[in-house]
Amino acid sequence: MRPMSRLSEIGEKEAVHRIQELVSERGSSNNIGPGDDAAAVDMGVIYLVATTDIMAQSTHVLPGMSFWQVGWSLAAINYSDIAAMGARPIGLLVSMGLPRDFESKDLDEIFRGILDCCEFVGGELLGGDTKETREMTLAGSALGTVGKNQILLRRGASPGDLLCVTGSVGLAAAGYHSLSKGLSFKAAERAILEPQPKVREGVLLSSSGVVTSCMDVSDGLSSSVYTLSGMSEVSFALDFDEIPVEGEVLQVAEAVGLDPTELSLYYGGDYQLLFTIKPNGLDKLTDLLGEGFSVIGKVQAPGENVLVRGREIVKLENRGYEHFR
Amino acid sequence: MRPMSRLSEIGEKEAVHRIQELVSERGSSNNIGPGDDAAAVDMGVIYLVATTDIMAQSTHVLPGMSFWQVGWSLAAINYSDIAAMGARPIGLLVSMGLPRDFESKDLDEIFRGILDCCEFVGGELLGGDTKETREMTLAGSALGTVGKNQILLRRGASPGDLLCVTGSVGLAAAGYHSLSKGLSFKAAERAILEPQPKVREGVLLSSSGVVTSCMDVSDGLSSSVYTLSGMSEVSFALDFDEIPVEGEVLQVAEAVGLDPTELSLYYGGDYQLLFTIKPNGLDKLTDLLGEGFSVIGKVQAPGENVLVRGREIVKLENRGYEHFR
Repeated sequence: MRPMSRLSEIGEKEAVHRIQELVSERGSSNNIGPGDDAAAVDMGVIYLVATTDIMAQSTHVLPGMSFWQVGWSLAAINYSDIAAMGARPIGLLVSMGLPRDFESKDLDEIFRGILDCCEFVGGELLGGDTKETREMTLAGSALGTVGKNQILLRRGASPGDLLCVTGSVGLAAAGYHSLSKGLSFKAAERAILEPQPKVREGVLLSSSGVVTSCMDVSDGLSSSVYTLSGMSEVSFALDFDEIPVEGEVLQVAEAVGLDPTELSLYYGGDYQLLFTIKPNGLDKLTDLLGEGFSVIGKVQAPGENVLVRGREIVKLENRGYEHFR
Repeated sequence: MRPMSRLSEIGEKEAVHRIQELVSERGSSNNIGPGDDAAAVDMGVIYLVATTDIMAQSTHVLPGMSFWQVGWSLAAINYSDIAAMGARPIGLLVSMGLPRDFESKDLDEIFRGILDCCEFVGGELLGGDTKETREMTLAGSALGTVGKNQILLRRGASPGDLLCVTGSVGLAAAGYHSLSKGLSFKAAERAILEPQPKVREGVLLSSSGVVTSCMDVSDGLSSSVYTLSGMSEVSFALDFDEIPVEGEVLQVAEAVGLDPTELSLYYGGDYQLLFTIKPNGLDKLTDLLGEGFSVIGKVQAPGENVLVRGREIVKLENRGYEHFR
């Protein structure tokens, strides 16, 4: 017998939990995080919001992904965490590990993708570092600011609030399967190859004054619902018929023989924002976001997270994408 | 014939130059960098200073280095860039790529090293990300703040200023050779395995009001002199006899049959601060730093950077450590 000790045995969540325990042993501060989409540093009247994400050739670069898309994605996944806090981006730092025989024209393309995504969200490329590694490995750190009273956190939802999501879910998962099988569903493939961080939406949410909690759904809708549930100490009832899904998700699901519910609830990669609003906040939000969001459920007292399908109420399964396992 | 295009052919400096050109095509802002030790973001009365550095198992982890030292070093090399700008650290973000079979107790040790270095400089671990990669790859991003009038940049030196360095040079290079040959020179080995970022010194330099330019010497003393020279558009005359070198550097040089000048001037890894001060600033700086620094030369009009050895004046060689080549 040997105690469980490798990352492949304990998984990403347990590894992160152990690190958080080591951090909390060192005492606390006025800052927010780890535990949210990004850390928030108390700067007086504002929070400085900061986050980091890493991706590597062997585990995160999809077959057929262009170098421009690699760069865009690195910036996008970092800016998505800034968006989830309702912050305006300042910019991005990029650390790259590259093999010796890496083509410099490919490096240029990666940076064009990074710079295009920075422009898209109104941020800047602030600085970087390049070193030699065996496989291409890119780490980004995004910075942003948000007014102290306007920050969006994973905690804050109350029973009676409405659960909402921007855009639709499942398209990135459909894109993954379309790419894998060569099905050429263009909108779906673009969703996973060129994710669009919801920075504009995040700023509108934070300025609305009616949002009570928020996070991105990069690890999957169901997994994110469980995270919000744990952080806010509430439960959720999702209305299955209200979960927004694009036509290509249904088409891809049929083509590959998968339940579209699987793609929409239990895969990640969508980079939409999942958030709760005060019950009387719906009109205000509709004024700001128009049809850019959907109400998909409601917040209840602590208990089981459930999925309501017509008359049927089933427990929402707590699974999504986890690294190392 | 094929145009030079791989990173191993163009080297790190040319690769960084190409990226800076791509960035400058996108227009400018009030921010500082790329091109300095760290980027500086204009926040009104202060600059937010931000930097990133990456290290990988195959290329940056020395044989015999403990996981605690890996973590400490990651934090230290990032905080050194904050120190070089005269900023006070806020904290660190850490992105880690780890193989599936990585031991979680080793991950704990890495984080203990990171947290100990954060405590050493008065910063916090703000957040992180862990993903699966083929080899251990760690990227850090350090943040800090400095008063707008107190920031230390690589440009600003004027003819007549004095060139100074904190601590001594060559000890890390001596440590590298001691480790390689199993010589067990303890101070030297500790210098390379557990570099100490000069954060306290950086803050004192920036508050002194007499420092005109500053950077860290992580790429080697000579290479750093050339960088300051280019950024400030001045030249330097280094006084060979005044360059501070510890006894172990001479002992290791003799043991391995190398010129100690080679270890002191043309290797990196020391993480000391190289800076220039106004000619009348020496007393003020001595009050603040005591014997923690040495005057090693003077600033001259643009021209060749030289090394003065008694009556002999020779051109300072422009070489140091460069990645990919």
